[in-house]
Amino acid sequence: MGPAAGADFVRLFVQACSSHLRAQGQEVRDQAFPEHWLVQMPIPDRSQALLGDPQAPTGPALHMQQGVGRLAALGVASIAMACNTAHVWHAQLQALFPQLHILHIAQETARHVQALGARQAIVLATAGTYQTGLYDLALRACGVQPLVPDAQGVAQLMEGIYQGVKSGHMALAEQRLGAVLGQMLQRYGDVPVIMGCTEIPLALPQAPQAQGRALVDPAWVLAQALVQRAYAPETVGVH
Amino acid sequence: MGPAAGADFVRLFVQACSSHLRAQGQEVRDQAFPEHWLVQMPIPDRSQALLGDPQAPTGPALHMQQGVGRLAALGVASIAMACNTAHVWHAQLQALFPQLHILHIAQETARHVQALGARQAIVLATAGTYQTGLYDLALRACGVQPLVPDAQGVAQLMEGIYQGVKSGHMALAEQRLGAVLGQMLQRYGDVPVIMGCTEIPLALPQAPQAQGRALVDPAWVLAQALVQRAYAPETVGVH
Repeated sequence: MGPAAGADFVRLFVQACSSHLRAQGQEVRDQAFPEHWLVQMPIPDRSQALLGDPQAPTGPALHMQQGVGRLAALGVASIAMACNTAHVWHAQLQALFPQLHILHIAQETARHVQALGARQAIVLATAGTYQTGLYDLALRACGVQPLVPDAQGVAQLMEGIYQGVKSGHMALAEQRLGAVLGQMLQRYGDVPVIMGCTEIPLALPQAPQAQGRALVDPAWVLAQALVQRAYAPETVGVH
Repeated sequence: MGPAAGADFVRLFVQACSSHLRAQGQEVRDQAFPEHWLVQMPIPDRSQALLGDPQAPTGPALHMQQGVGRLAALGVASIAMACNTAHVWHAQLQALFPQLHILHIAQETARHVQALGARQAIVLATAGTYQTGLYDLALRACGVQPLVPDAQGVAQLMEGIYQGVKSGHMALAEQRLGAVLGQMLQRYGDVPVIMGCTEIPLALPQAPQAQGRALVDPAWVLAQALVQRAYAPETVGVH
């Protein structure tokens, strides 16, 4: 994900705050929103870094520590990272900053899918994310079986994400992502579909194969989880 | 403005960065964006505060100082405030934090209108903003004559902003804002139109009276000014 997706995450968070306030019967007024900070900084490409040494001093790890360190100094209580691949460094960051809670995008998504009552979920992601086992581990820990495409399907997804969304060719993206989804639904039946890469929700929902399906956007799940923490009694007024 | 407008300002900033990079012939990649922070915190209503003592300890002034103080501690070089009314406290904040530059939304907008070659500009804003003379002073300093609606027009604008946009009644908003604009264009001819309240750009551009007119969105002008500073040689790498 890039800065545009980061900006969009703030929009999702603000929207999730409004929904929460309405659900609680509270008035939606400017002063009812919790204090929140966004930091966007140039961080070396996460997927690239996974091809080499993930702890290299020129890699993302130290940059992310720098950013989280400053958030910690501000006194924030909870952090959400909207980038899926960045979660490779989640455990390391959390161990380094025990004074705050770093939400985990895949664990929150897995809990959400589990709460839907699903025993299986289709995971659409980049080759890099599959390689890290990010959603695989989180889903299995919640008793949900991850369903992933075959090598040809992964290649089609990568084409939809890189030559499609990232290059602004949305028709190509819709076609490729939709084709993979169609094949998987045919094979596994109608199960929840995790859009495990920030580019996928920009194209897949428009594909004919996605109509009426249970699409899960991890960024939206993450935004809602952050809102729950922000309004939880023990954290109100702390950050 | 509220948190949704704040989130939208990040979107505008990211978009303005992309435009800047393209105009410079540089590649638009995640790492080419400058570091940027957003802080949104509960601040007492600015328009309300202007009815009493603007320096009251329960008012916005101290809260804004608290926020700017933490941005200063982070080492930021430049700050943009997306709220028009908050600029009542601009000079005070700038004097308190001489180590950083706080952009001024009305001054940036006035310079933009001046650069368009205009000698007059229609200013659409809230009663509170008119009262502060925010755009009035900034435009006159740039040799641009501000054109403001009469009392009945201001009442219609307030209805369009409060009963319209802020209450989710967009048809009403379009009708009221469009009506005021139509009357002013008829009276003053085709001059630039400053949408001096964050709610106005959400409804006015859809009104029939606004079609083909030179609408100026101060938030967009401000985002572009911030981008100019972020990429200026003397500030690169500083914040």
